Amino acid sequence: MKSRIRLVAILLVVSLAVAFFLPTSPAPAQDKTIRWKIQTPYPLAVPYVARTAKMGDRIKAMSNGRLDIKFYPPGGIVPAYAEWDALQKGTLEGGFMTPSDVRGIFGPVGDLFNQYPMGPTGIEMVSWMLYGNGEKLLREVMDKVGFKEVVFVAPANLSVAEDEMWTNKKIEKPADFKGLKIRTFGYWGQILQGVGASVVTLPGGELYQALERGVIDACEYGTSADNEAIKLNEVTKYCYYPGVHSPGNVHYIFVNKKAWERLSPDLREIIKRESLATAMDNFAAGAVESAQAREKMRAKGTQFLPLNMEVQAFIAQKSDELWDSFAAKDPVYAKVYKDQKEFMKKYRELMGEIQPDFTKIYEALKKK
Amino acid sequence: MKSRIRLVAILLVVSLAVAFFLPTSPAPAQDKTIRWKIQTPYPLAVPYVARTAKMGDRIKAMSNGRLDIKFYPPGGIVPAYAEWDALQKGTLEGGFMTPSDVRGIFGPVGDLFNQYPMGPTGIEMVSWMLYGNGEKLLREVMDKVGFKEVVFVAPANLSVAEDEMWTNKKIEKPADFKGLKIRTFGYWGQILQGVGASVVTLPGGELYQALERGVIDACEYGTSADNEAIKLNEVTKYCYYPGVHSPGNVHYIFVNKKAWERLSPDLREIIKRESLATAMDNFAAGAVESAQAREKMRAKGTQFLPLNMEVQAFIAQKSDELWDSFAAKDPVYAKVYKDQKEFMKKYRELMGEIQPDFTKIYEALKKK
Repeated sequence: MKSRIRLVAILLVVSLAVAFFLPTSPAPAQDKTIRWKIQTPYPLAVPYVARTAKMGDRIKAMSNGRLDIKFYPPGGIVPAYAEWDALQKGTLEGGFMTPSDVRGIFGPVGDLFNQYPMGPTGIEMVSWMLYGNGEKLLREVMDKVGFKEVVFVAPANLSVAEDEMWTNKKIEKPADFKGLKIRTFGYWGQILQGVGASVVTLPGGELYQALERGVIDACEYGTSADNEAIKLNEVTKYCYYPGVHSPGNVHYIFVNKKAWERLSPDLREIIKRESLATAMDNFAAGAVESAQAREKMRAKGTQFLPLNMEVQAFIAQKSDELWDSFAAKDPVYAKVYKDQKEFMKKYRELMGEIQPDFTKIYEALKKK
Repeated sequence: MKSRIRLVAILLVVSLAVAFFLPTSPAPAQDKTIRWKIQTPYPLAVPYVARTAKMGDRIKAMSNGRLDIKFYPPGGIVPAYAEWDALQKGTLEGGFMTPSDVRGIFGPVGDLFNQYPMGPTGIEMVSWMLYGNGEKLLREVMDKVGFKEVVFVAPANLSVAEDEMWTNKKIEKPADFKGLKIRTFGYWGQILQGVGASVVTLPGGELYQALERGVIDACEYGTSADNEAIKLNEVTKYCYYPGVHSPGNVHYIFVNKKAWERLSPDLREIIKRESLATAMDNFAAGAVESAQAREKMRAKGTQFLPLNMEVQAFIAQKSDELWDSFAAKDPVYAKVYKDQKEFMKKYRELMGEIQPDFTKIYEALKKK
């Protein structure tokens, strides 16, 4: 009996000693790995989506394996464009997407956080979101349409301007849109309908077949890099520029609130900062990849054509009118639109002053 | 004796059991905190520097306290501009800086990684560094000039164009630089000297006094946000734009190789990604802060004036000549310069095509 008591005493001392040397911080035990699912409605073949999907590997490395995030393609867990509802319900922990993906829920105000004709460039949108009132206004809008359980984390992609239109028919005046079956995205489709086009929205992954089979005659989807990835050049002849309908395009990481709150502060910070780092990656890579993609597609026969100023001005004017009409109907839209417009005005005034106009300078040099 | 053996056996089992439940990953014990010193030669009062200095807090949060990085101001550990040598020797673990800071060591090639007249914008430079040959070429240059022990991590700042010149005397033709004592930075100072200016390089923190006491008549230092932070507007009347001499400015995180290799992979990844996230922060905030700064300074009486095209073209022409002369003398310079020029050519061709020219579109609308 004595030896038993001694044994217990010794074990106690040993246990205390062991406990003393144990780390005080939460220990990253193998069996405590947190597993998250992030889904995106955009095809993983598209370069910026592929790069964003690798956030999972980088977060795993940064968290030393404690946070294991797997990215899923459209339909991987829930159907494409059902990501918002899945985040609200907690079926998904995260989504890589943009409010305008679910136009049936957000309405026209969603486009103001993503892209629209003559709207913000990618960097203007991100600047407004992070250093203007964008994030705060998006929060208000999300609460209003029923996404109180969804947390905005950060932008994870911002692009250069998109290709204006891939088509097999030349477009030289607004009336040339007449009769075309066009795939596009966003409210500016109403402008195309106004001149007699019929407009559909198809996911990126379905465009190749739709063009090949003649289900649609024309489409716009993303930047030249994105479009080369889904091989639009194989099924259309012409690509119009500049990207009047989308001077830039921005996508964000959103997460389920409860899942977010269950994470320790270090893991929350890792996801936040990794999203922003990925945004920087994507922005830096975007123009490089688009330039390379255009070179390749040019070599294979695509004709890149400038959209004449008549058509550009037509799109700008009609969309300004359309946006004003949304503002007249919806005070929330009006509030967001006004704030963003004022922000862009100041931004563009500054940039117009400080950034040298290389073309004009070299023209002046030639005249010498 | 028997009970002793039994005791040892039981202890062994207990120890094994305890060991089994111990975390397998390296444990973040309180006493294992790694402490790093990062110094920058730029004043902490400048907004982008202040924001970058907070990388320390964010890395501490992400690493759950395991990595504690303190940012030091110029002279905090070593004299300003001695950061490169300190990184090579290991006196500092990290630096936030740019190769052109030590012109005596890098020579003209350093400017190609930071800024020069008609050179890359901030985003062009970062794109070339990360998705062109920039990082690889910088490695070659660093090895050649004796910084084999210094590791390039990532960009952590990219700016909009800098203010062209703060001055008390109007500049309307190249000859107006004559007799001016100008503080500037980089080889383009030789162009100013060529038209009779005397040129000095002073650290940002000394500019206010130098202007106030008439030690210098004019200076350029950074963006409008940077210049408002060091109050250049209080000691000069005019601010010229656009930023021909610096269409953008880029700063990086560099670290000592041994210190870097001692870090576990998760901590290395955290520093890398946090640097890029900070670059995104700084780029998004830059224009917003510069627009606000100009508004404030305008209200206090600063006259923002456009530099006429004659002077802009003069700077562009002379610096092209100067850059070509460097290339003729130094094959390493020639190699880097050629690569960067080709990159910029493609980049600008793409952007010229795809980005809508808002000004032209609205002009077309007005004519309707």
